[in-house]
Amino acid sequence: MRYAVLGTGVVGRTIAAKLASLGHEVVIGTRDPKATLARTEPDGYGNPPFSNWLAGNEQVRLETFADAAAWGESVVNTTAGVGTLQALDAAGAANLASKILIDIANPLDFSHGMPPSLTPVNTDSLGEQIQRAFPEVKVVKTLNTMNCQIMVEPARVAGEHTVFVSGDDTDAKKAVTGLLVSFGWPETAVIDLGTIETARSTEMLLPIWLRLWDTLGHADFNFHIAGAPSGA
Amino acid sequence: MRYAVLGTGVVGRTIAAKLASLGHEVVIGTRDPKATLARTEPDGYGNPPFSNWLAGNEQVRLETFADAAAWGESVVNTTAGVGTLQALDAAGAANLASKILIDIANPLDFSHGMPPSLTPVNTDSLGEQIQRAFPEVKVVKTLNTMNCQIMVEPARVAGEHTVFVSGDDTDAKKAVTGLLVSFGWPETAVIDLGTIETARSTEMLLPIWLRLWDTLGHADFNFHIAGAPSGA
Repeated sequence: MRYAVLGTGVVGRTIAAKLASLGHEVVIGTRDPKATLARTEPDGYGNPPFSNWLAGNEQVRLETFADAAAWGESVVNTTAGVGTLQALDAAGAANLASKILIDIANPLDFSHGMPPSLTPVNTDSLGEQIQRAFPEVKVVKTLNTMNCQIMVEPARVAGEHTVFVSGDDTDAKKAVTGLLVSFGWPETAVIDLGTIETARSTEMLLPIWLRLWDTLGHADFNFHIAGAPSGA
Repeated sequence: MRYAVLGTGVVGRTIAAKLASLGHEVVIGTRDPKATLARTEPDGYGNPPFSNWLAGNEQVRLETFADAAAWGESVVNTTAGVGTLQALDAAGAANLASKILIDIANPLDFSHGMPPSLTPVNTDSLGEQIQRAFPEVKVVKTLNTMNCQIMVEPARVAGEHTVFVSGDDTDAKKAVTGLLVSFGWPETAVIDLGTIETARSTEMLLPIWLRLWDTLGHADFNFHIAGAPSGA
């Protein structure tokens, strides 16, 4: 499968490397590839410059949002939530149409200081905004409730834990569940919450996730729904 | 210990019965005890009238919010979130001052239809509103992230699962943790998230809780934080 991963941050890199390791073809999309490759400083989170990462992942290419989206059979959104709709506009509705878009982003709003709040929230979500803006895209919200290392290596966290999926297209959710299983998730760990409207409820896990990160002092934790029957 | 439980719904009844079974003295507070006792129809959730419940729990008394709060050494808020501040105003700041107030309520807003949204949310919480309105009260937010049967009988859900506490007063949180242990919670299941500001993050679990209730078809589930060390 050809995957376009939108976003050059640590989530995009982690997903891209995992997809490539599973034998998929991967192109990462960004606004301005030349500018991204020209950076020599760590990013705002202390991650090494993208060019360093790319040198160690030669099977992955970097292209514009539009070229990546046009080429990919499926698309993964790992851009910062605040910039997601702009990035998808740059990718282009025609290049995205009828494809599965796996949305991992969270609409964290740092404009009011720390801890970040969510915008939108409560009566709307980023997942729903994407689905409304690109009605022909099959948006599946998933993996947005955990650290990216756990997304691609769930065994980092001992015991049972959960990954949620939300989306309007049942076949798209099935396909994404298959991808999650290939990442190492037991199928019984996947809880299908329903339509894309339920993305509200998973995005609203971010405040307690951020709080737990601080309280526990590490990010190797995940939500588990105790009492959910296997395969719910 | 003398506990004033504010609210006559199923959460209040369940907490009151548990406290009484543990040998505590319990008074339930309500706006208008005569009106509450006069009702002969099930409430909006299909629960039997309060008078029926009280007939089977003769060690519990029903009084006004103010009389209950004045009498109690600690107070438990189980009123509907939308009416909590009004109920606490009726209880009276002087009757609440310097007491521990265990806040189990969630600010569910049904005014926009189903599913309910939260008001306040994101940059504020009911727990914080209570603490600001009653600065001398020691507000501890806890137990608001699960069905009330599980609050008082955590073993209903198999395996490990979590109860969060939020509050500004460390000693009050210790006392409430002791109460949770007496309810059957292992001390290692209690995660202290920090100040009352962190009540935002637990109240924001309600949307996914409500969604899971629908998806799973039962309420005997709870959040567990996999990867959190015991006693975090």
